[in-house]
Amino acid sequence: MQVKLLTNILKANKDLADTNRTIFHKAGIKVINLISSPGAGKTTLLENTIENLSSCLSLGVIEGDLQTTKDGERIAQLGVPVVQINTQGGCHLDANMVNQALTELPLEDIQLLFIENVGNLVCPASFALGEDAKVVITSVPEGSDKPAKYPIIFEKAQICLLNKIDLLPYTNFNRREFYEDLQKINPSLTVFEVSVLTGEGMGAWYSWVKKI
Amino acid sequence: MQVKLLTNILKANKDLADTNRTIFHKAGIKVINLISSPGAGKTTLLENTIENLSSCLSLGVIEGDLQTTKDGERIAQLGVPVVQINTQGGCHLDANMVNQALTELPLEDIQLLFIENVGNLVCPASFALGEDAKVVITSVPEGSDKPAKYPIIFEKAQICLLNKIDLLPYTNFNRREFYEDLQKINPSLTVFEVSVLTGEGMGAWYSWVKKI
Repeated sequence: MQVKLLTNILKANKDLADTNRTIFHKAGIKVINLISSPGAGKTTLLENTIENLSSCLSLGVIEGDLQTTKDGERIAQLGVPVVQINTQGGCHLDANMVNQALTELPLEDIQLLFIENVGNLVCPASFALGEDAKVVITSVPEGSDKPAKYPIIFEKAQICLLNKIDLLPYTNFNRREFYEDLQKINPSLTVFEVSVLTGEGMGAWYSWVKKI
Repeated sequence: MQVKLLTNILKANKDLADTNRTIFHKAGIKVINLISSPGAGKTTLLENTIENLSSCLSLGVIEGDLQTTKDGERIAQLGVPVVQINTQGGCHLDANMVNQALTELPLEDIQLLFIENVGNLVCPASFALGEDAKVVITSVPEGSDKPAKYPIIFEKAQICLLNKIDLLPYTNFNRREFYEDLQKINPSLTVFEVSVLTGEGMGAWYSWVKKI
């Protein structure tokens, strides 16, 4: 009973994600779904990316959070259209929430839409939103065993940002374990090692975003 | 419809958590439910706590993970009875999973049972397992805005461990914001600042565990 219900929810979500995808394609908008644990650096990544790319690309943002408009406010300060979705405790964004948020965005003015999911390495992996790419952000202090322990999102993502590499000297992060596990889970995953704080390695990320 | 179903699930979970609680009380076992984001340091905390306390307390562990037995193996090496629950992608432990795991543990030999939940700051907060205390672990590199952004678990926890304080000099963690937000969310929450890696501050945690 419970399994059947979950299947129905995922099926309904997939259908609505396809509807979103059609809307995005018609409007000529590319969409990136940012997924990570709490505190891996999604919002700071987004701030820096907007500062770097907003002169050459028209950007828009959907911000997902349990509650508070903290992240939405940070992004709005950069002059980019942003809609904040508060899930009221819900642990992931779904296609329906995104569909409703679209009515609040000036789609005709947007070329690239970032969706910052709720901070959660588990549930958001299972809910398509209509995106062109899932980007998973993981960070050095979280440890090198994250791909092995949370494989679903690493399997489904096209890009992995390994953030906070400035903290490598102060942690026991094992690069070899990290890359060997990723190779088993998703050999075609592209990894960019970055420090959102210092800017190290961000050039490769910006280049990828421009070409999506 | 969906809301009603969720209510039913939570009600059924609560009933089963009460059953677990009765089993624990009869067996004279205290139970601590460890909840955090992926990579905040739950398993290392547990390893060090076992090494420090196993001479004066009989311990047992239930390990929750999406898949893999990595954490369970780490704990088993310390000679403590451990059961690994693999949720097969599920984002939290529930009272039923714990109830089933109890049949695999020598309850008569255990005084204190640690339950390491799935790494997720959202969903585990809503599912009681029959524990005496929820302990939330958050870590300096995750940032000082975590209580404001994920308030439910900070509201429900009795203890908060702020881990990885050895990384304070290398991050922009704002202690004032952290404590001010906690004060609003849960004024009776006790915080221990620790570094599981260096051992700093762990004495206060061990003292609390001994007295639970």
